[in-house]
Amino acid sequence: MRNLNADNITAAVVEEFSGCEDERLKTILNSLVSHLHSFLREIEPSQSEWTTAIEFLTKTGQMCDDQRQEFILLSDTLGVTMLVDALNHQTSDPMVSESTVLGPFYVANPPKVDQGGAIDWNVEGEPLYVEGRVHDGAGDPLVNVVIDVWQSDSEGFYDVQKELDSASLRARFSTDEQGRYAFWTVTPAPYPIPTDGPVGKMLELTGRHPYRPAHVHFMLMAEGYETLVTQVFAEGDPYLDSDAVFGVKDSLVREFQLMPSGQAPDGRNMSGPYRHFKYDFGLKAS
Amino acid sequence: MRNLNADNITAAVVEEFSGCEDERLKTILNSLVSHLHSFLREIEPSQSEWTTAIEFLTKTGQMCDDQRQEFILLSDTLGVTMLVDALNHQTSDPMVSESTVLGPFYVANPPKVDQGGAIDWNVEGEPLYVEGRVHDGAGDPLVNVVIDVWQSDSEGFYDVQKELDSASLRARFSTDEQGRYAFWTVTPAPYPIPTDGPVGKMLELTGRHPYRPAHVHFMLMAEGYETLVTQVFAEGDPYLDSDAVFGVKDSLVREFQLMPSGQAPDGRNMSGPYRHFKYDFGLKAS
Repeated sequence: MRNLNADNITAAVVEEFSGCEDERLKTILNSLVSHLHSFLREIEPSQSEWTTAIEFLTKTGQMCDDQRQEFILLSDTLGVTMLVDALNHQTSDPMVSESTVLGPFYVANPPKVDQGGAIDWNVEGEPLYVEGRVHDGAGDPLVNVVIDVWQSDSEGFYDVQKELDSASLRARFSTDEQGRYAFWTVTPAPYPIPTDGPVGKMLELTGRHPYRPAHVHFMLMAEGYETLVTQVFAEGDPYLDSDAVFGVKDSLVREFQLMPSGQAPDGRNMSGPYRHFKYDFGLKAS
Repeated sequence: MRNLNADNITAAVVEEFSGCEDERLKTILNSLVSHLHSFLREIEPSQSEWTTAIEFLTKTGQMCDDQRQEFILLSDTLGVTMLVDALNHQTSDPMVSESTVLGPFYVANPPKVDQGGAIDWNVEGEPLYVEGRVHDGAGDPLVNVVIDVWQSDSEGFYDVQKELDSASLRARFSTDEQGRYAFWTVTPAPYPIPTDGPVGKMLELTGRHPYRPAHVHFMLMAEGYETLVTQVFAEGDPYLDSDAVFGVKDSLVREFQLMPSGQAPDGRNMSGPYRHFKYDFGLKAS
């Protein structure tokens, strides 16, 4: 392995990994090296472009901490996250709900809330009533499905982005005997992904906006079924067709219907207007 | 741009970059997205493999500081650095010296030393006398060429890896009227690239060793000529054919010849054995 040039170096690097005893790791690295080298041969980067790339990757790593994951943002904005999601959740069954990106704001084990309860702790905004049912993909209700929900406030911020002492706009529910779930919240807003790091700079330099359409996140977990990570988007949002992370699917869009004051679906008497959407989820047997 | 799946997402991401006014940046990102997505479609990573990749890249960035550049190590060990070097310095002229990787230990503006001087400050080791000349690619001498040299000590460590108050085993020379350069140093040793970070872990998991064959680095700068970044390797080194960063070329290998005590080529009287190599460099007009 000497005298390597642009034509023979790829085979030489692949050969160096030939002793790897983890076959899956070997497959991944061989494929990575081949595609990465093909990319470089195609664009023929100058030394200074290579330096820029090294600096970009370094800053992206250094931007990460407990509250921020800039490499996930990079994966999201290059369509990598959605591609990996698509490769893992290919389904042609219209009864099974579609998945989309997890995003960086999920927190495990959110506060448990009873069916129909409110999760709008420490926030103000237009009330939103969300309800639906969960079925097994054949239409039969699934009982005791764990549903985690999380969302931004009406200004586009998640609780973890604000200095709060406790959770807000995130909770865990459980479906009842008829597979139903329901909760009160506030209407989320569209929001920009964080733009003060290298990924924001990339979007700016390439003329891309950083916005995501308004949505509510859901994660559904039931024994014997694949965990479903998804989002429900607001019909009419200006960013539905240009989501910065490529996550919108028609089956996940619902009208967040504006309702007049008066009696809500759960019997609550509303003194002003509010919004309402229903979403039924179908899970896939694992 | 909705309902993206494994087949149509690549075109959608490329389209999002269509408004980029920097044509070169647009070309690079379009190529990157295409090759990156092809890689992912080929290996179909699981969600947990994706998470592992995000964590690996994050740790690689977080390992970097003033003294350490883990992303350059990653580039080196995947053959990327040498491929970029090859793409930028393709030459078939045997009179022009070949280039190789800069490495992470170069320090700009090293101490100036007169021709024939010693650079083995604060180190011990087997003496090594290095000499040669620099020509214009047609054989005519080049005068006043700036030559930066740097190397490891006899245990494989560079000055910046040790806690020294001043430079050691790095210096700047200038060629004389006949294009000559010469200096005294100590014989460098083969050494492992730093293995205490994510790149070292990758090498370990894949059964690769981290060693580089013993070498002396050179950077030659002359007006009207391309800057030459290269290394001269020791013939007989056990790692010549498995350099962890893929940098060895036959034209860059020289015998570090063991010489008996007595009068050295520059007239110095040596009380014990020492080593000696000559290397003539040919530069390429820019």
